[in-house]
Amino acid sequence: MNINENYKNLEESYLFSTIAKRVSDFSSKHPDVDIIKLGIGDVTLPLCSAVIKALHNAVDEMGYKETFKGYGPEQGYDFLKNSIQDYYKKFNVSLDLNEIFISDGAKSDLGNILDLFDNNNTCLVPDPVYPVYVDTNVMAGRKIVYIDANEENDFLPLPDDKIYADLIYICSPNNPTGAVYNRVQLSKWVDYAIKNNAIILFDSAYESFISDNELPRSIYEIDGAKNCAIEFCSLSKTAGFTGTRCGYTIVPNNLTFNGMNLNKMWLRRQTTKFNGVSYIVQKAAEAVFTPDGQKQIQENINYYKQNSKVISDTLDKLSIKYTGGKNSPYIWLKCPNNMNSWDFFDLLLTKIGIVGTPGAGFGKNGDNWFRLTSFNTYEKTTEAMNRFYSLF
Amino acid sequence: MNINENYKNLEESYLFSTIAKRVSDFSSKHPDVDIIKLGIGDVTLPLCSAVIKALHNAVDEMGYKETFKGYGPEQGYDFLKNSIQDYYKKFNVSLDLNEIFISDGAKSDLGNILDLFDNNNTCLVPDPVYPVYVDTNVMAGRKIVYIDANEENDFLPLPDDKIYADLIYICSPNNPTGAVYNRVQLSKWVDYAIKNNAIILFDSAYESFISDNELPRSIYEIDGAKNCAIEFCSLSKTAGFTGTRCGYTIVPNNLTFNGMNLNKMWLRRQTTKFNGVSYIVQKAAEAVFTPDGQKQIQENINYYKQNSKVISDTLDKLSIKYTGGKNSPYIWLKCPNNMNSWDFFDLLLTKIGIVGTPGAGFGKNGDNWFRLTSFNTYEKTTEAMNRFYSLF
Repeated sequence: MNINENYKNLEESYLFSTIAKRVSDFSSKHPDVDIIKLGIGDVTLPLCSAVIKALHNAVDEMGYKETFKGYGPEQGYDFLKNSIQDYYKKFNVSLDLNEIFISDGAKSDLGNILDLFDNNNTCLVPDPVYPVYVDTNVMAGRKIVYIDANEENDFLPLPDDKIYADLIYICSPNNPTGAVYNRVQLSKWVDYAIKNNAIILFDSAYESFISDNELPRSIYEIDGAKNCAIEFCSLSKTAGFTGTRCGYTIVPNNLTFNGMNLNKMWLRRQTTKFNGVSYIVQKAAEAVFTPDGQKQIQENINYYKQNSKVISDTLDKLSIKYTGGKNSPYIWLKCPNNMNSWDFFDLLLTKIGIVGTPGAGFGKNGDNWFRLTSFNTYEKTTEAMNRFYSLF
Repeated sequence: MNINENYKNLEESYLFSTIAKRVSDFSSKHPDVDIIKLGIGDVTLPLCSAVIKALHNAVDEMGYKETFKGYGPEQGYDFLKNSIQDYYKKFNVSLDLNEIFISDGAKSDLGNILDLFDNNNTCLVPDPVYPVYVDTNVMAGRKIVYIDANEENDFLPLPDDKIYADLIYICSPNNPTGAVYNRVQLSKWVDYAIKNNAIILFDSAYESFISDNELPRSIYEIDGAKNCAIEFCSLSKTAGFTGTRCGYTIVPNNLTFNGMNLNKMWLRRQTTKFNGVSYIVQKAAEAVFTPDGQKQIQENINYYKQNSKVISDTLDKLSIKYTGGKNSPYIWLKCPNNMNSWDFFDLLLTKIGIVGTPGAGFGKNGDNWFRLTSFNTYEKTTEAMNRFYSLF
């Protein structure tokens, strides 16, 4: 029996374990310091009441023979797909119901979609990057090329005609930089993909954090995108579903390559290797898209955005350069005095008891950058940024 | 961009769509006939009260900041892994906690586990077979060899030293035949796998239907299995979780091939391409393993078994040969008068209004066989078998 030897090429990530160790070492020596974590990548507010109500109702249904639900459609129930179809109409994006696939989260589908593509394709990923894009392709032995996201391009790299790629990863609003492509920039990527007969894998997991109405929340707001892009979205950050697990993937009907239709292939993949998302969870997700649900999740998003503003206002006052914040739960700041990101991490931890994430953990272009997040409480975030202001 | 061309080799299955069409054609011509479906492959009884209670409690937790759960461990919460560890102790199987991985169902993991193996491996599958074993390997371009499960071997084929395989699929109790391997037979497979440096992918989704205490419910009851087998189980049929979605996969620590450890590889696969099962669903699954939960799910299983008995008693009276029933929700019967399975389907439908599943849909060895299931009500099952008895 032969193992998939590509796994030998995976690099271990020690980012979060190293952070945890440095924090625990410091706090055991200085138990008096009130450490504030602004490195949190997970939501902290509970599920909103519309979702809780829908969950209880769905649980009740599962307890009676008359309303019990067994196997559902692998690609998701129409009631939820209808809600998502309506949601996209708000951005003037029209989707056929069969283009919407319900998933247990964007991470699963971002990995599993690669089943549809030959292993000899070349992937283009930005640096810095969410490590999952890289690792899932290393597992299949695909060639990976990097494009620099850096201070010169405001962490929003544009296509380079000299680089050929078959699969293009774009995350906007970006993790870790919080940078968001505008329509003109995204059009350039769509044009490039069509010219190269390539596919854009568009991760829109943070779309609900966009405040600026001029910025696209779906790649399908861009002309031509339905001929070259698959979009992955999630309720994890939108509605606090990180522990509840529901997302959705849009595979347009137009995507046909070498006589094979990607929508039909994905349906076949999902019906063969997946059995759908829990009915209860799909009912919870449906509630997110109701008027009550939308109002309630917006209150939570606004709470996190208030934290972003506390962070970005402090950085503005200190004239520290950053991306993100306004349209993202992440703030990606340039380490003052050209410090490298691990030295800056140690400085914040030891001098003011603040924990963030060193940019170096996301790629070489993060060497002098640092990620803060807006997922702590308002009180803690304010206290942290007061300390930060005093330090510089 | 190059598509995964292996998808071109997938065969479309028209089994259930053909059945549905024949049934609807018949019932539109004969609206007076009370059709009884014994082809149902899904549970019909609701979730038991211990599970419903646990679901409501978990939903409540998700509504308060203090008890809200965000991202959990991708491989599952310890509270559930502990319950499963204890469950296996009942079969005298001792598992390390890190050998247990919680999944959203056996179908996902049976497909996804193949990520760990090179595409040039050869798979061995029985005929007749659950089509997912075949299709997931066709998608990766693996060579598939078949072993005959037929009347001569009571649908329990044993290893053939002339056949070489790297990945061996065993489903016991079997879908579609309901046949169950005994310890001696399963030992032969374990010996064969170890001799060939092969891996057994053991699907135990129906283990809770085993009544005969002498039959193994886990492959790890067999000496040596921890050196050659991965086991996939599910709460779908055990506890009516087909629409709730939770299963578990056991990857022993011993499985090391060419310097690569399969347990560590699977952990890496899951942490990269999966984000864990919903907290709420894991709490529901935990409730299945409590004393109340075990008692309640056993009542449901006994209800289905009573239906199996109605079916098998009728077949006994008619001296029709069959496998399954006693230790499985499926009864696999030989079509009387050497009819082929589609002719037999038409006969049952048109003469007595009974719907089952033609064995031909599962492989060539099913050509003269027919599957009935125990998932309808007791009243309908009894009525159906009265009609069946009168016909023959």
